Amino acid sequence: MLGVWPDNRHQAALLRLLRDGGPRSRAELVDAVGLSRSKLAAEIDRLIDRGLVDTAGPAASRGGRRSSVVRIAATTRYLGIDIGATTLDLAVTDGEMHILGRLTERTDLRDGPAAVLGQALEMAAKLRVETGSKGFTGAGVGIPGPVSFREGMPVSPPFMPAWHRFPVRETLAAALGCPVLVDNDVNIMALGEMHAGVARSFVDFLFVKIGAGIGCGIVAGGEVYRGATGSAGDIGHISVDPEGPVCVCGNTGCLEALFGGAALARDALAAARSGRSPHLANRLREAGIVTPVDVSVAAAEGDPYAMGLVRDGARRLGQVLAGLVSFFNPGLIVIGGGVAGIGHALLAEIRSVVYRSSLPLATGDMPIALSELGDEAGLLGAARMISDYICHTPPEPANQAGPRPAVAT
Amino acid sequence: MLGVWPDNRHQAALLRLLRDGGPRSRAELVDAVGLSRSKLAAEIDRLIDRGLVDTAGPAASRGGRRSSVVRIAATTRYLGIDIGATTLDLAVTDGEMHILGRLTERTDLRDGPAAVLGQALEMAAKLRVETGSKGFTGAGVGIPGPVSFREGMPVSPPFMPAWHRFPVRETLAAALGCPVLVDNDVNIMALGEMHAGVARSFVDFLFVKIGAGIGCGIVAGGEVYRGATGSAGDIGHISVDPEGPVCVCGNTGCLEALFGGAALARDALAAARSGRSPHLANRLREAGIVTPVDVSVAAAEGDPYAMGLVRDGARRLGQVLAGLVSFFNPGLIVIGGGVAGIGHALLAEIRSVVYRSSLPLATGDMPIALSELGDEAGLLGAARMISDYICHTPPEPANQAGPRPAVAT
Repeated sequence: MLGVWPDNRHQAALLRLLRDGGPRSRAELVDAVGLSRSKLAAEIDRLIDRGLVDTAGPAASRGGRRSSVVRIAATTRYLGIDIGATTLDLAVTDGEMHILGRLTERTDLRDGPAAVLGQALEMAAKLRVETGSKGFTGAGVGIPGPVSFREGMPVSPPFMPAWHRFPVRETLAAALGCPVLVDNDVNIMALGEMHAGVARSFVDFLFVKIGAGIGCGIVAGGEVYRGATGSAGDIGHISVDPEGPVCVCGNTGCLEALFGGAALARDALAAARSGRSPHLANRLREAGIVTPVDVSVAAAEGDPYAMGLVRDGARRLGQVLAGLVSFFNPGLIVIGGGVAGIGHALLAEIRSVVYRSSLPLATGDMPIALSELGDEAGLLGAARMISDYICHTPPEPANQAGPRPAVAT
Repeated sequence: MLGVWPDNRHQAALLRLLRDGGPRSRAELVDAVGLSRSKLAAEIDRLIDRGLVDTAGPAASRGGRRSSVVRIAATTRYLGIDIGATTLDLAVTDGEMHILGRLTERTDLRDGPAAVLGQALEMAAKLRVETGSKGFTGAGVGIPGPVSFREGMPVSPPFMPAWHRFPVRETLAAALGCPVLVDNDVNIMALGEMHAGVARSFVDFLFVKIGAGIGCGIVAGGEVYRGATGSAGDIGHISVDPEGPVCVCGNTGCLEALFGGAALARDALAAARSGRSPHLANRLREAGIVTPVDVSVAAAEGDPYAMGLVRDGARRLGQVLAGLVSFFNPGLIVIGGGVAGIGHALLAEIRSVVYRSSLPLATGDMPIALSELGDEAGLLGAARMISDYICHTPPEPANQAGPRPAVAT
C-alpha cells in the first residue's frame, strides 16, 4: 500500500469521495462520479488490486442485482505531526480521517531537529502499536516557522536556528517508509479548519493564528496558497506603526512586535511591575510570571489596563486584516492559536475595526469567527495535507499549473 | 463556429497549444499532448468538424508518411473591449491572439451604458468589416469599476452610477451573437501582462494600476483571483493614514485619497495656486489646468515640491505593497496605468520602500517592474479572458473547484 497512487483522476476522485463520504455502494458511486458502470467497475477493481480500496460486503438492495459496498482500505493510516514551540502533538487517523489515537509530549525545539524528530518517531511508533497500524500510508508535518514546502525543510526559522534547511521531510520519510509533506503550522491549521472546522463550506478564506507570533494561512479556490517562494501569509511582519518598537526581524513597528503572545507577555510584565494593573501585579506576586492568559483573565475581571492591552492589540490586528479584506476579499476569517483563547473581547474589537474600515462589497457577508477545532486543527490539517496529496489527480500536460512537490518515498 | 466548445480536456489542451504555439503538425501534437496517434486524430477530427480547427496543408516530412499541419480555425476572431473613463478602445485578434485591427474613440461613461455600449457595438461592426471577420468567436470586456464577474455586470461603480447592475454581458452577447465575459479593467490588464507582457513567465503576481484611482489585479497559480464576492484587489481603499483626508468611500486616509491621478491633480492644483511649485504655477497659467503628467514633468525638471509629491505618493503605495508582499509573496509586481507614466522616479521610491520593509524571504528575487504593454494590456487581456474561457477544460465532477461562470450565447 505504501507509495501507491491513483493512476488517473477518476481513481483520485473515487478516493476523495470515499474518504469524505464514507463507504458507498458501487451503484451510488456510478451516480456520484459520472462514469459508466463498466468503467467505474474497472477503476474500482484497479484500486482494490493496489490495496487502496476494500470491498465491504453487499449493499442494501435497490432492486435488481445487489451492489457491493466499497470503502477506503481499512489498513489506511495517516499520521499527523504538529510540532509546536514546546509540545509535540501526534495523531493517527484512518482513511476517512477519523482520529484513532493521539499523543502529546513536551519538547524543546532548541534541542535541535535530530532530537525532536527522534522523539516524534518514538511517539509515532507507540501510536502505531496503539492503533493497530501496520504502517503509515503517509504523514503530514507542521512546523512553527517558515518552511520551503517544495524542499520539505524549514528556512531561517527565527526561534530555531538549528533547524535551518534541515531535511525534515527526507528524514521522516526514510524513517517512516511513507510519503511525507512538511508545511508551516499555520497552513496546516487552515487545512484542518477547512476539513472539519468552521471553514468547512468555504473555498476562499484566511486562518489567522495568534500564538507567540502572528501568521496567516491563505486558502484560495480550496487550496493552500503558498506564494512564489513559500512565504505567503507572513503577516506578523507587516509594519503597523513606523514609531513602534523594533521587531526581532530588524524592522520597526511590525504587527508581531505590538501584538501576539510574546508582545502581550512583555506588556503584561511591565504593567505588573509598574503597578499600572493591580490584577497583573497580584498575579506576578503569586505566580512569579504573567502570561497572555493572565491578561485575558484580568480583562474579563474588568482590569482597565488589561482591557486596554487586548483592545489595542486587537485594533492593530484589525487594521491589518481590514487591508487584507480589501485586497483578498475572503469569504471568512478564522481566528485561532493560543491567544485566541482570549476569545470574545478580542473578536469583538477585531470585528469592529474590520467592518468599519472595509468596503461593504468585501465585508457584506464575511463572518469573523473563532476556531472550532483548537489543538486538533493542526493535527487534522497535517493528515489532510498528505491525504490530499495521495488522493490527488495526477498531473497531466493538459492541466499542470506548476511542478508537483517532490515527495521522498 | 459560434457557441461551440471543446467537449473534453484533450480538445481544450489542443486549442490552447495551437493558440499559444501556432500551427503544428499532427506528429508534433502527438509529442506535446501525450495522446496516442489514433486518439489524437479522433480529437482533431472532431475539432475540425465543429469548425474550431483547420488543416493547413502537409507538414515538412519527418520521414515516413507526411503529417498534415493543423491550426486554430482561420475564421476565429476575439473581440477585446476596454472601457475607460474617457475612451473606448477595441481590438480584434485572430485565434492566435494577434491584433488584426484596433479602434479608439472618446466616450463619456456618464452618458450611461446604453449610449456607451451602443457606441462600442458600432465600433465593433466597423472593426469586423475592416478585419474581414464573419463574426466574433467571443468577446471580453473590461470596465473601470467593481464588476460581478459571475453576473457580468458592474456593481456600485463609484463614478458611473447609471451602470449599477446594468446587464453588460447579456446586452453585448445578444447584440454580438457570441459568448461574452465582463471583468474589471485591472484584472484584464493583469491577464494581458501575463499573456504578452512582463509577467509572461509568472504564475503568482500582482498588477497595480495607478490611474485616477488605484487597483490591483491578483494572479494566483496562473489564474485571476477574484475573491469570495469578486472585489479582490480593491487596494485603493486600504487605510494608510488615520489622520488623512476623507475619501469618496466615506472612510479616512484611504490610499486612493492620498495618491493616484485624482489626488495628484488635486495636490498639484493647490501647489500651483499657492505658488509652492513655480513649475506647476507656470503650467496652470499657460494651460488653465494641471495634470498628473505635469507633476511628472515638473519633478523631472527638479521642482522640489513636485518631486515631494511623487515621493510621498510612492512611499504610501510602497507601504501598502510591502504589506501585500508579506501576505501574498508574489513573484513579481507590475506597475501600470496612466500615472505609471511618471516612470522611474516613482518606481525607484516604491522599490526602496518595499525592499526595505519586507522580509528577504519574500523579496529575495521579486522584481518590481513597469508595464511593458501600456494601453494594449487591457485589450489583449480582454481577448485572452474570453479565449481562455472558450479553450477551457470543461468542468467535470472530479475537478470542479467552483461554479463555472454562466455565459450568455
